[in-house]
Amino acid sequence: MKQILLLNGPNLNLLGAREPDIYGTFTLEDIERTVNEVAQKKGYNVTSVQSNHEGNLIDEIQGATGKYEGIIFNPAAYTHTSVALLDAILAIEVPVIEVHISNIHQRDSFRRQSLIASACVGQIVGLGLYGYKLATEALIEEIIPKRQK
Amino acid sequence: MKQILLLNGPNLNLLGAREPDIYGTFTLEDIERTVNEVAQKKGYNVTSVQSNHEGNLIDEIQGATGKYEGIIFNPAAYTHTSVALLDAILAIEVPVIEVHISNIHQRDSFRRQSLIASACVGQIVGLGLYGYKLATEALIEEIIPKRQK
Amino acid sequence: MKQILLLNGPNLNLLGAREPDIYGTFTLEDIERTVNEVAQKKGYNVTSVQSNHEGNLIDEIQGATGKYEGIIFNPAAYTHTSVALLDAILAIEVPVIEVHISNIHQRDSFRRQSLIASACVGQIVGLGLYGYKLATEALIEEIIPKRQK
Amino acid sequence: MKQILLLNGPNLNLLGAREPDIYGTFTLEDIERTVNEVAQKKGYNVTSVQSNHEGNLIDEIQGATGKYEGIIFNPAAYTHTSVALLDAILAIEVPVIEVHISNIHQRDSFRRQSLIASACVGQIVGLGLYGYKLATEALIEEIIPKRQK
Amino acid sequence: MKQILLLNGPNLNLLGAREPDIYGTFTLEDIERTVNEVAQKKGYNVTSVQSNHEGNLIDEIQGATGKYEGIIFNPAAYTHTSVALLDAILAIEVPVIEVHISNIHQRDSFRRQSLIASACVGQIVGLGLYGYKLATEALIEEIIPKRQK
Amino acid sequence: MKQILLLNGPNLNLLGAREPDIYGTFTLEDIERTVNEVAQKKGYNVTSVQSNHEGNLIDEIQGATGKYEGIIFNPAAYTHTSVALLDAILAIEVPVIEVHISNIHQRDSFRRQSLIASACVGQIVGLGLYGYKLATEALIEEIIPKRQK
Amino acid sequence: MKQILLLNGPNLNLLGAREPDIYGTFTLEDIERTVNEVAQKKGYNVTSVQSNHEGNLIDEIQGATGKYEGIIFNPAAYTHTSVALLDAILAIEVPVIEVHISNIHQRDSFRRQSLIASACVGQIVGLGLYGYKLATEALIEEIIPKRQK
Amino acid sequence: MKQILLLNGPNLNLLGAREPDIYGTFTLEDIERTVNEVAQKKGYNVTSVQSNHEGNLIDEIQGATGKYEGIIFNPAAYTHTSVALLDAILAIEVPVIEVHISNIHQRDSFRRQSLIASACVGQIVGLGLYGYKLATEALIEEIIPKRQK
Amino acid sequence: MKQILLLNGPNLNLLGAREPDIYGTFTLEDIERTVNEVAQKKGYNVTSVQSNHEGNLIDEIQGATGKYEGIIFNPAAYTHTSVALLDAILAIEVPVIEVHISNIHQRDSFRRQSLIASACVGQIVGLGLYGYKLATEALIEEIIPKRQK
Amino acid sequence: MKQILLLNGPNLNLLGAREPDIYGTFTLEDIERTVNEVAQKKGYNVTSVQSNHEGNLIDEIQGATGKYEGIIFNPAAYTHTSVALLDAILAIEVPVIEVHISNIHQRDSFRRQSLIASACVGQIVGLGLYGYKLATEALIEEIIPKRQK
Amino acid sequence: MKQILLLNGPNLNLLGAREPDIYGTFTLEDIERTVNEVAQKKGYNVTSVQSNHEGNLIDEIQGATGKYEGIIFNPAAYTHTSVALLDAILAIEVPVIEVHISNIHQRDSFRRQSLIASACVGQIVGLGLYGYKLATEALIEEIIPKRQK
Amino acid sequence: MKQILLLNGPNLNLLGAREPDIYGTFTLEDIERTVNEVAQKKGYNVTSVQSNHEGNLIDEIQGATGKYEGIIFNPAAYTHTSVALLDAILAIEVPVIEVHISNIHQRDSFRRQSLIASACVGQIVGLGLYGYKLATEALIEEIIPKRQK
Repeated sequence: MKQILLLNGPNLNLLGAREPDIYGTFTLEDIERTVNEVAQKKGYNVTSVQSNHEGNLIDEIQGATGKYEGIIFNPAAYTHTSVALLDAILAIEVPVIEVHISNIHQRDSFRRQSLIASACVGQIVGLGLYGYKLATEALIEEIIPKRQK
Repeated sequence: MKQILLLNGPNLNLLGAREPDIYGTFTLEDIERTVNEVAQKKGYNVTSVQSNHEGNLIDEIQGATGKYEGIIFNPAAYTHTSVALLDAILAIEVPVIEVHISNIHQRDSFRRQSLIASACVGQIVGLGLYGYKLATEALIEEIIPKRQK
Repeated sequence: MKQILLLNGPNLNLLGAREPDIYGTFTLEDIERTVNEVAQKKGYNVTSVQSNHEGNLIDEIQGATGKYEGIIFNPAAYTHTSVALLDAILAIEVPVIEVHISNIHQRDSFRRQSLIASACVGQIVGLGLYGYKLATEALIEEIIPKRQK
Repeated sequence: MKQILLLNGPNLNLLGAREPDIYGTFTLEDIERTVNEVAQKKGYNVTSVQSNHEGNLIDEIQGATGKYEGIIFNPAAYTHTSVALLDAILAIEVPVIEVHISNIHQRDSFRRQSLIASACVGQIVGLGLYGYKLATEALIEEIIPKRQK
Repeated sequence: MKQILLLNGPNLNLLGAREPDIYGTFTLEDIERTVNEVAQKKGYNVTSVQSNHEGNLIDEIQGATGKYEGIIFNPAAYTHTSVALLDAILAIEVPVIEVHISNIHQRDSFRRQSLIASACVGQIVGLGLYGYKLATEALIEEIIPKRQK
Repeated sequence: MKQILLLNGPNLNLLGAREPDIYGTFTLEDIERTVNEVAQKKGYNVTSVQSNHEGNLIDEIQGATGKYEGIIFNPAAYTHTSVALLDAILAIEVPVIEVHISNIHQRDSFRRQSLIASACVGQIVGLGLYGYKLATEALIEEIIPKRQK
Repeated sequence: MKQILLLNGPNLNLLGAREPDIYGTFTLEDIERTVNEVAQKKGYNVTSVQSNHEGNLIDEIQGATGKYEGIIFNPAAYTHTSVALLDAILAIEVPVIEVHISNIHQRDSFRRQSLIASACVGQIVGLGLYGYKLATEALIEEIIPKRQK
Repeated sequence: MKQILLLNGPNLNLLGAREPDIYGTFTLEDIERTVNEVAQKKGYNVTSVQSNHEGNLIDEIQGATGKYEGIIFNPAAYTHTSVALLDAILAIEVPVIEVHISNIHQRDSFRRQSLIASACVGQIVGLGLYGYKLATEALIEEIIPKRQK
Repeated sequence: MKQILLLNGPNLNLLGAREPDIYGTFTLEDIERTVNEVAQKKGYNVTSVQSNHEGNLIDEIQGATGKYEGIIFNPAAYTHTSVALLDAILAIEVPVIEVHISNIHQRDSFRRQSLIASACVGQIVGLGLYGYKLATEALIEEIIPKRQK
Repeated sequence: MKQILLLNGPNLNLLGAREPDIYGTFTLEDIERTVNEVAQKKGYNVTSVQSNHEGNLIDEIQGATGKYEGIIFNPAAYTHTSVALLDAILAIEVPVIEVHISNIHQRDSFRRQSLIASACVGQIVGLGLYGYKLATEALIEEIIPKRQK
Repeated sequence: MKQILLLNGPNLNLLGAREPDIYGTFTLEDIERTVNEVAQKKGYNVTSVQSNHEGNLIDEIQGATGKYEGIIFNPAAYTHTSVALLDAILAIEVPVIEVHISNIHQRDSFRRQSLIASACVGQIVGLGLYGYKLATEALIEEIIPKRQK
Repeated sequence: MKQILLLNGPNLNLLGAREPDIYGTFTLEDIERTVNEVAQKKGYNVTSVQSNHEGNLIDEIQGATGKYEGIIFNPAAYTHTSVALLDAILAIEVPVIEVHISNIHQRDSFRRQSLIASACVGQIVGLGLYGYKLATEALIEEIIPKRQK
């Protein structure tokens, strides 16, 4: 069975409890279940990793080669400060799709800029839990097949 | 039958012919067919408008109240320069989802900023024709129902 | 009877419905009636034009020469983005007074700058419907007579 | 009889002599007479203060509570540099209307920005002596009544 | 007979009357006559379009494919604000030469930057009516033949 | 008995009445009493000065040499604009501790920068009335003794 | 017994040895002893954590809910670069007070800005070891009681 | 006998005691004596004013008309922040020469910019007490005679 | 016979060999021949100077008075850095037309700005060798005659 | 035998596979072998550490005191974002030489700035694997001996 | 007899003819005569050099050591662009006084900044020919004697 | 015998005498001897040129084609201001390695940016005289052989 990686960055383990008017009341487990359901139906297995450590996220991305067909990545706060994550994505061939739960364009101005976006295939922004569902569909139906041609 | 508006901004009538390595080889008709197919299955009718005139796009958005349940909007080049489109979206209650065919973060720096994003519910960026499919799903299954609660 | 032009820019046709906590609950018709009343008493006729199209606004300004004694202009969102409207005002001899309904200095920073202000005689900002009344008085009692000396 | 405060900032005592092609040939006394005439007719008394001292202006604004119904304020050069005047206006409930004699948008770029504008109800700019007349009308007929509701 | 398009942007219909110390006393008709004379001698027909509407200019540029061998374009005020015109020029194969009547480098700083220049073959700036003559020569003798190799 | 100076800048005489959700409901007298209590216990006398005049604050700071062991200074709005206060502090040997009642980092961006901070020993920010208590302790127990070694 | 967390960021384990003219000659152990002494007297227990890893600091802050009444935090170099720490503090209800040993306003300009300050209750800056003493007092006597009302 | 005004801004009353490695060990009295000696020989009387109050300096400049032939002005810290002093100098006909004791270009970057310089005839910078001697000579021998032609 | 000066700046002696995809394969001799042919037909003699030395270029421009009717100038890299060349052009009455071989708007951003443009009559940009031909025509047929009126 | 530390930052474990047109085809092992060979000949032992974790790199630098004579450090992406690494280098006495494989000045503009450079002895940039050889020579023959004087 | 160097930068050989409303009608010879007269009376010889070549000016400054007691330097346009002249002045012990004929603060903004000022003893700005007289006095009576102590 | 060029920019002829705490006490002759010794052993001849004239440096670089295998270049102050040297390096095929004696990242901020770096193969910074030794090795052993493949 083919594999995809669901990668969530710092503080996303607190979803549900953390600023619910911004991030909603769903939890990390809800995200995992949503991605799993979509993926399973289309014959994909999901590995889910959440970490508050920039280095761990880099290790996961580096390890994706030969192991995953694609990555769904919400880099959270590291979106705006990490050149190292940008380099990690550039270093691998595995396609990455960037997801943000909240609409980052309605918040602090430093949250509007993504250092990582230029290395990803695309972004889905502001659609909450549903955005993960769409990202899974896009990865499996559109991005992975296109890469393999 | 419920209605949604598919609104495309300047130069998108040239899709297919225009810079195909950036925008792909599909056409505006392909977009319309894709959105229609998804919407019809879910019981929605689609009105499609493309215009090169900022004023026309404003007129369409203003006219959406009481007529459409939601708008799928690719503002193209006006994304980066139009405060008037921002105001039009702010002036209506109808939810708008922003779509960009190419990954605007891999292009000129002035294309990385959207004046309109803060007034939209969310964005889908860089997924080509498939992005319109996802936007239609998101609008009908997630955004419209949520607004109606 | 002498003529003045009341010119309103994009989205001002939605006044009353649009973000009433910012723009108030009066309508475009209320503006027209207010300006008319003041002008009529002082022997002036008012032509009122509202358009969402930058080009239409330019056409109206260009057409003012020989037709109107002065212009009351609320350029709305084009205030912040239109060099072409600036050029149109510079190209004519007819005096223009700029009006903003809301206090643009209490809103987004990009709304604080007017590209057009340097070509106008003056501005009235933040006084709502009443600002149009003052603009009409200023135009007829102060600006037009001064120009004619 | 109700009271309003006419407050003029640094160098405005030199009006008439000072750069007449920018500020015109009228004097501070002309301003006081104009404001008085309008106010008296509408049943208001005017206290006029001019000072070159930022601290005096702050003292006057602070003292307005319970004494004046509103303030007509031309902060002159302090417009562009005084956070302390901004704080003073924020600290009182009395409404303030900002007046500038010349069109500050036709002068040095550092004169285009007002630190105080966001705390005022509105501005009248570029209409010379006549601007004070309009400000008095706006204060008495529009701003004060609205506050009292 | 081969065709070229002479395209003039906002406010250029007012040439002769508008700020003659900046733009000279010649008119749009003088420009048309000048371009026509040069073109006719070299076996080219000229279609002349002037519009104050950004959308119309985009429509004209889009329609150039298969109809014109080249475009002489003075985008006037839209030079500094229109990404949509940039995209329209990028979307077609027809070569464009940019003309400015006045020396934009001797004017306001916001007039020194052209959003469109990078998509054009070249620019001719500051040579008044004569600049159009040179642009016509350059288009017919240099740019069009080079493209056709 | 040893002396310290409690120096408060513009608009702080309005504490209690002024924007209580930002500055709290305590008054200048509360501040004076708090500082006095702490100081008296440790054998220090407090002179309290509040002024809205930048020049007065400079005079007070200049006069501190040979009179006070240290200064507790809340420069309020002058924090962000006064090079002259910076110079006054640099010109004396008496140590200064800077206090801000509200957390200036949660307000307008121009309030986040202190021109004076680099000349002070330290800052206490955002702790309300209690911040003055801490500043008095720090001055008497830590800063003054350290200077005297 | 109630608990508070003393959290120190990167390189603070080297205190005493590291640049003593900036940071003084006291050590991390001195800080811990100081905070402990103040806290114990007031009936609080202190847990002390120092880490050079941004991720560890985030983990500690996340884990504070339900475990600590408040946090004394010196984020050191991460003060200026970490949006992830900002988000962690925003995600919890436990109050945080920010401490800096040296006066960051007397050093490199990039050290003058704190990304974290807006999420903290307050800051104590430039008072060396004594600053931790004050922070402990403020937390226990002022901040925690206020939150509990 | 003709009169000149020697005007010194904030903190210059502390000369000699204040940061002597920057400003030297001479005092305000030394400056007054130096300027007096030069002026007296050339038949001029000197009035010397020093103030820490921006408003007082403005009052002095305003009062110069008809009283002084010229002004030697060291605005000290107000050099960098006062638009009101700029306006005062612009408002009078009396010529002003700007003096700085230290070389402001060897200090903090915010000290390199003078808001006032454009309204003065010239500047003498970095020559200490001797700079005042030169300024007196320049005023009496060069600037005043030239103005009177 | 009347004289014009053809002045080429640094590295233009390497044309043909230097980055031919940017500058084309023609040489400095080709430029000289082109300009000569056009000029000779119209009764003008051409003096050609190329130098890598900013000082030499200044000397040439200074020496133009009374010797040349006009100058065709490609300042190459000095375009972006030389205030001294700007001053030299401002110091003479002889008209200068600026030429750039490549479209400087398609290259590094620091090449988009010309320090010299504001002192020239006009610019011709991006037309390669042909641009020199047009510049010669413009100088002889348009610019020189206009100056002599 | 004396010791030096070879420290490589994030993603450098992927060398050879990662973007070979930028970083070449050599691997981390090739770097280790190269540095070892040079060092061994000169009587030095090399410890090699690579980590994707900013915190680990800080720990290694902190641990260098008393253990290594010098450090060869390629901070990779952390070069541009880590103040904490800067502080770690400032905190130790062991000299550090910075190495970059690619010429960072030919890449994205945010890669041109090094936060760490000011704390290092020197940099070697753009010389690929060979740059490590030079760094080893410089450290052993030049930097370490100089420090020990 | 002691020597001083009078050094004038680019385009100053054109004084008298060049933009006389900015630079006056005096010539380089007038400057040389003025400086000579003052210097001779005080026992100094003057060597005068003017060059349009940055390199020549550097050579002159480098050659000053052991030959001249001081330098009067008007770097003209190189004031704003030459780091190499800054380095040359830093490299010698001979004191330099900077002179500008016009008030550079009343001209283009790029003329307000001097790269060289921080390496000079002082500046005299805006006093025309007379400024050179003052500079000579300052050099001989103040700067040279002070250096020799 | 093969040739390399050692090229040193402005003020480097003063090495040893000039600011020795920044540049050390070695001289230009020491540099020449160092480079010569390394080069001779590896069968290369060195031509050494130092000039204060930007134009001379350009001439030397242009003349390198067919004459030298590579260039060791310390552009000194021109590093930060010369686009013309950048263009000269871009115009030739001969590889260039950039050397800086001091660590430019520990000095003025305008010295941290190199306009020339992007056209060089690599840089060696901050290693003093030893940096030239390394540059010679790198050129002969690494850069020249690689180019010749």
